[in-house]
Amino acid sequence: MTASPFDHPYLSGLLGDTEISAFFSAEADIRAMLSFEAALAQAQADHAVVSKETSLRIAEVCATFQPDVLALRHAVATDGVVIPELVRQLRKAIGGEAADKVHFGATSQDVIDTSLMLRLKAASNILSKRLANLIGSFDHLVGTEGANRLMGHTRMQAAIPITVADRISSWSSPLTNYRDRLDQLQKTAFPIQFGGAAGTLEKLDGKASAVRSALAESLKLSNHPQWHCQRATIADFAHLLSLISGSLGKFGQDIALLAQSGTEIELSGGGGSSAMPHKQNPVAAETLVALARFNAVQLSGIHQSMVHEQERSGAAWTLEWMILPHMVIACGASLRLAGELTGKIERLGSRNSGQG
Amino acid sequence: MTASPFDHPYLSGLLGDTEISAFFSAEADIRAMLSFEAALAQAQADHAVVSKETSLRIAEVCATFQPDVLALRHAVATDGVVIPELVRQLRKAIGGEAADKVHFGATSQDVIDTSLMLRLKAASNILSKRLANLIGSFDHLVGTEGANRLMGHTRMQAAIPITVADRISSWSSPLTNYRDRLDQLQKTAFPIQFGGAAGTLEKLDGKASAVRSALAESLKLSNHPQWHCQRATIADFAHLLSLISGSLGKFGQDIALLAQSGTEIELSGGGGSSAMPHKQNPVAAETLVALARFNAVQLSGIHQSMVHEQERSGAAWTLEWMILPHMVIACGASLRLAGELTGKIERLGSRNSGQG
Amino acid sequence: MTASPFDHPYLSGLLGDTEISAFFSAEADIRAMLSFEAALAQAQADHAVVSKETSLRIAEVCATFQPDVLALRHAVATDGVVIPELVRQLRKAIGGEAADKVHFGATSQDVIDTSLMLRLKAASNILSKRLANLIGSFDHLVGTEGANRLMGHTRMQAAIPITVADRISSWSSPLTNYRDRLDQLQKTAFPIQFGGAAGTLEKLDGKASAVRSALAESLKLSNHPQWHCQRATIADFAHLLSLISGSLGKFGQDIALLAQSGTEIELSGGGGSSAMPHKQNPVAAETLVALARFNAVQLSGIHQSMVHEQERSGAAWTLEWMILPHMVIACGASLRLAGELTGKIERLGSRNSGQG
Amino acid sequence: MTASPFDHPYLSGLLGDTEISAFFSAEADIRAMLSFEAALAQAQADHAVVSKETSLRIAEVCATFQPDVLALRHAVATDGVVIPELVRQLRKAIGGEAADKVHFGATSQDVIDTSLMLRLKAASNILSKRLANLIGSFDHLVGTEGANRLMGHTRMQAAIPITVADRISSWSSPLTNYRDRLDQLQKTAFPIQFGGAAGTLEKLDGKASAVRSALAESLKLSNHPQWHCQRATIADFAHLLSLISGSLGKFGQDIALLAQSGTEIELSGGGGSSAMPHKQNPVAAETLVALARFNAVQLSGIHQSMVHEQERSGAAWTLEWMILPHMVIACGASLRLAGELTGKIERLGSRNSGQG
Repeated sequence: MTASPFDHPYLSGLLGDTEISAFFSAEADIRAMLSFEAALAQAQADHAVVSKETSLRIAEVCATFQPDVLALRHAVATDGVVIPELVRQLRKAIGGEAADKVHFGATSQDVIDTSLMLRLKAASNILSKRLANLIGSFDHLVGTEGANRLMGHTRMQAAIPITVADRISSWSSPLTNYRDRLDQLQKTAFPIQFGGAAGTLEKLDGKASAVRSALAESLKLSNHPQWHCQRATIADFAHLLSLISGSLGKFGQDIALLAQSGTEIELSGGGGSSAMPHKQNPVAAETLVALARFNAVQLSGIHQSMVHEQERSGAAWTLEWMILPHMVIACGASLRLAGELTGKIERLGSRNSGQG
Repeated sequence: MTASPFDHPYLSGLLGDTEISAFFSAEADIRAMLSFEAALAQAQADHAVVSKETSLRIAEVCATFQPDVLALRHAVATDGVVIPELVRQLRKAIGGEAADKVHFGATSQDVIDTSLMLRLKAASNILSKRLANLIGSFDHLVGTEGANRLMGHTRMQAAIPITVADRISSWSSPLTNYRDRLDQLQKTAFPIQFGGAAGTLEKLDGKASAVRSALAESLKLSNHPQWHCQRATIADFAHLLSLISGSLGKFGQDIALLAQSGTEIELSGGGGSSAMPHKQNPVAAETLVALARFNAVQLSGIHQSMVHEQERSGAAWTLEWMILPHMVIACGASLRLAGELTGKIERLGSRNSGQG
Repeated sequence: MTASPFDHPYLSGLLGDTEISAFFSAEADIRAMLSFEAALAQAQADHAVVSKETSLRIAEVCATFQPDVLALRHAVATDGVVIPELVRQLRKAIGGEAADKVHFGATSQDVIDTSLMLRLKAASNILSKRLANLIGSFDHLVGTEGANRLMGHTRMQAAIPITVADRISSWSSPLTNYRDRLDQLQKTAFPIQFGGAAGTLEKLDGKASAVRSALAESLKLSNHPQWHCQRATIADFAHLLSLISGSLGKFGQDIALLAQSGTEIELSGGGGSSAMPHKQNPVAAETLVALARFNAVQLSGIHQSMVHEQERSGAAWTLEWMILPHMVIACGASLRLAGELTGKIERLGSRNSGQG
Repeated sequence: MTASPFDHPYLSGLLGDTEISAFFSAEADIRAMLSFEAALAQAQADHAVVSKETSLRIAEVCATFQPDVLALRHAVATDGVVIPELVRQLRKAIGGEAADKVHFGATSQDVIDTSLMLRLKAASNILSKRLANLIGSFDHLVGTEGANRLMGHTRMQAAIPITVADRISSWSSPLTNYRDRLDQLQKTAFPIQFGGAAGTLEKLDGKASAVRSALAESLKLSNHPQWHCQRATIADFAHLLSLISGSLGKFGQDIALLAQSGTEIELSGGGGSSAMPHKQNPVAAETLVALARFNAVQLSGIHQSMVHEQERSGAAWTLEWMILPHMVIACGASLRLAGELTGKIERLGSRNSGQG
């Protein structure tokens, strides 16, 4: 089944993002969850909560373990989370005394949220690089087309002439800010989640803080007290995703309007029409608008999830799962499409000295 | 790639709906699009726009044609729609004179929107049956538990005693209304889309209306002038999906609150916890709330798409593609989960004559 | 304080709607709530629940009673609803034995929801009349401009020529459907709310149904069992409001795009600019887009309120109060602006026989 | 007319915020806009764009000028913005040569966006102080109740015992982060808007940058190139507003759930019911949830406005006006209600050594 346009056999050609989607595959999630369990055992061995042998055995199995995914699917239907069944299978594979020590002191949310942070951090890095490339492309365009004249438009009416550089600045400046913010996030904004059953790490006694610190360091995540039911971390990232796709939606809308006039822009390789072979549709430009509006809609759901009752809300947490992965992919697809579209701009504005 | 929780190898166990998802697979879309092309040729043959031989040849190939999906994917990236490449492949497979007559007078949106209507109509039928089953389950529950007493709660405070039948009525009554509306939709609300390049069917001259009527009859869709850029049909269906998941979200929230109290309900088979084996989590109940909030969020995007400029908006239309399939699946999953949850209610309220 | 742009001393000139706003004034709400209390007493007198004298005394006072609004404000801060204090004041004004019979068997939500239905029904009637007028204006425009040629646009690119009548049909056809639906609503969709403390009308014994029926008839609302925690009635109306403003947003976007080209439309009296006196901004057209997007956003909140837990959810219900009035006004303002804008169209498309 | 619940004669007792609403009154907007015009003239006098006498005359009139608000209202209906008419009136009041120099080089958006920044900055300061007070109240509560036991709940089921301090930390920790962010915003995030007709300050030649810098300094806003069509500044602030109300919604939901159990919390002064005098409704707690969901919905509209086409989008900009003021007030009301609610907590959890 492939109902999602982001994963769809052919719609994903337009809307998907292979590189970003990979972080949200079952395989990537499983590998990240197993790396949590391995790192937890190691951190606990470092602080004498479990033996060195135990941690080595757990790490050894986690490195290559392939769970029975169909059994995971059945279990999720009942448990609402994949961890009880994954840990059960993992314990069976590990065997012996070490089996009981897997996942010690942790809860499902620790593993699932941490897996998400590991993957968001990696995805964020890719988004940052794409932003840098896109900014570079805009800089290049300023170099070649920036001095051209363009009719400035306000309220969808011709206003006064501006330069192409003025217009490109309105596309590029926000991106610089977003890239800086993504880079800043790399340092602090992807925290470990580790709190145990109800956030108190009650099974680790006096060693809770040290184990959490070691775990964070091992996974290269920032060390932060559990944030089970405090979801601003998720909302902040989602907000930034929507800012990026939103600014690119403005870029797309501008290109579509430029292309409509027929004289202010030359684009190579527009989309074909089944009824009108003469048309060159600015498909990427329109899709940028669609992706911007998509993420603007989704962000509302992430903020609904801020009402995360008590120590763990199944309702609010599950809602995040349904929304966040698509937001990251939509942001990635926006950057991909904006890069492609920028590369197709052969002329922007008018080179002669006449008025836009 | 399987980033969507609705299609995900294990998350779909909770959030997916195999039966409904099938309508949004690439395969189902392709079959529906080919059935449009075949029916179009036949309708045109009936009105002497194309020859009988042509329509038979087109129908013959459409019945079994398997497109090169990878090529479709590449083409969608450029064209924004799958049709130009699908028709190109189809023409090649048909060959001869008939090849040129495939898709005659139609445009991409005719095929894609009509394919959607065919599949929404079938999905709607399933949703209606599930509603009927669920209403039946609630009726059964009224029979066995309806006379029990329950403490009525207003503003999350104990109010006055009510009966279990009173509470079940608040879950079931809206569903009866929705089922009636779905059944009504079967008759009128899934219209053919057929307008050609810009909605005027300019290639069919005086036969446009007759061909459209024959096409609608053949595909068992209602006959309606093109609605390319008038999207209330989509919004009405999406609204009903969200009403259904919304009312089931109320049911889920009520069950979760009943289960929290510990004495007002007995449920069999709750979800397990990796940290707290003693717990029986009301997973389905919480998931119903998550699905309700999900669809409430998505509906906003469908309504944003009402601003569908000119004769066809790539931006507004593509936004629908990103949102609507998940809404149908979420509604389907809600009905599935509500049915399962209802079946797990072993006692509701208190059977003794004491107060709630 | 006047922070709302819909009520604002000058922004309301653009965004407000004096006629529709009036239904959401405190004064209109108070009068409607008092008419409920009077009609309730009368219905109870008809069925011998209270004496004829009591009902006459209650009706007499309700007809002219002016509550202490500042005291209402203080009470709402504590009670979350206005009714306890309003009834307290009303009882004091009525005095004697009749005082105790005011509001007998009813609860706050009965009065507040019924007051809303009374006012939505009246507002709906105005919206229907405006739709009829607007449809008339479009019909007139078809008569004068319909034969003109216009370049059809798909995906924001020139496609093939159409007629102005084709374009106007895409604006007007949905409105005809909406007007029919509004007219249908007048007959059935504004139900009385009457359920008492937890929906069971427990104080009225065997007379509950008869009293409710009489109450509905007296208030000219449809007779329906209490729907306290079943909010599809609200969501259906909100959906229709957003469909109307959405279709008018499409009209506005089209006009703004036509005006941008500079040759396809002539409008009288566009908006001025403080920096560019030469401009004629299509202010109403853009505002229609803004109002469409506004309602599309708000609808999401109304659907969130479908998760209305137990017998009465303060959270879900209060959320409706914050959203619905503005949606009705935004819809009203859309119709007002669309009417004004249509009246300013002096030419549409090109009259000569050349191509669009 | 007072349809907005935030400004409503009695609903505002629950949902309004007098202190925050004041910043969005017409009066406050007018004063801020006039302060922009005065500061602009002064900055231009400092850089010899206008004479000293001119700037003094402009400042003198702006200090006390009371515009004809009804005329503003009429003009907004046509112009879409208040500035052309306000400047016209202002010029008439100033008279002489100075009249022509008012608003020199500026455009409507410069004045309106800057007025907004001035008022958001002041409102932000109040929100920060309320956050600090609320954090203090939570700290106090930790001191008196923190050692009490509470049953931790996950997925709406009793999990394991925690302390009241654990729970309060989940309410308070996010607020500390938000307060720090608001304080950081005071330094950098409220930028001057000054770009002229299409963002190029074309009338100020080489002095544009110096005048903008002086203007920013005079108005105590940060100096930033025009951001007319780059709206992340608005979206960032709106996001933070929704984070605050979202976290307080979590607090409210938790309190409502605690109050439902009947034994885990003692609150003074709950809300009355018209039908059930025995009830003590946790009105403030539920209202916090409603306000959180309200802002989560609205944020979507602010992000839709990121698609701000060309040099100025009437549609996207007007949409912000309809949404942002209510978001600030809703955030303010959340903080007010959370403060009141915290003050009513007389006991939390159980003081004896038994299990929560």
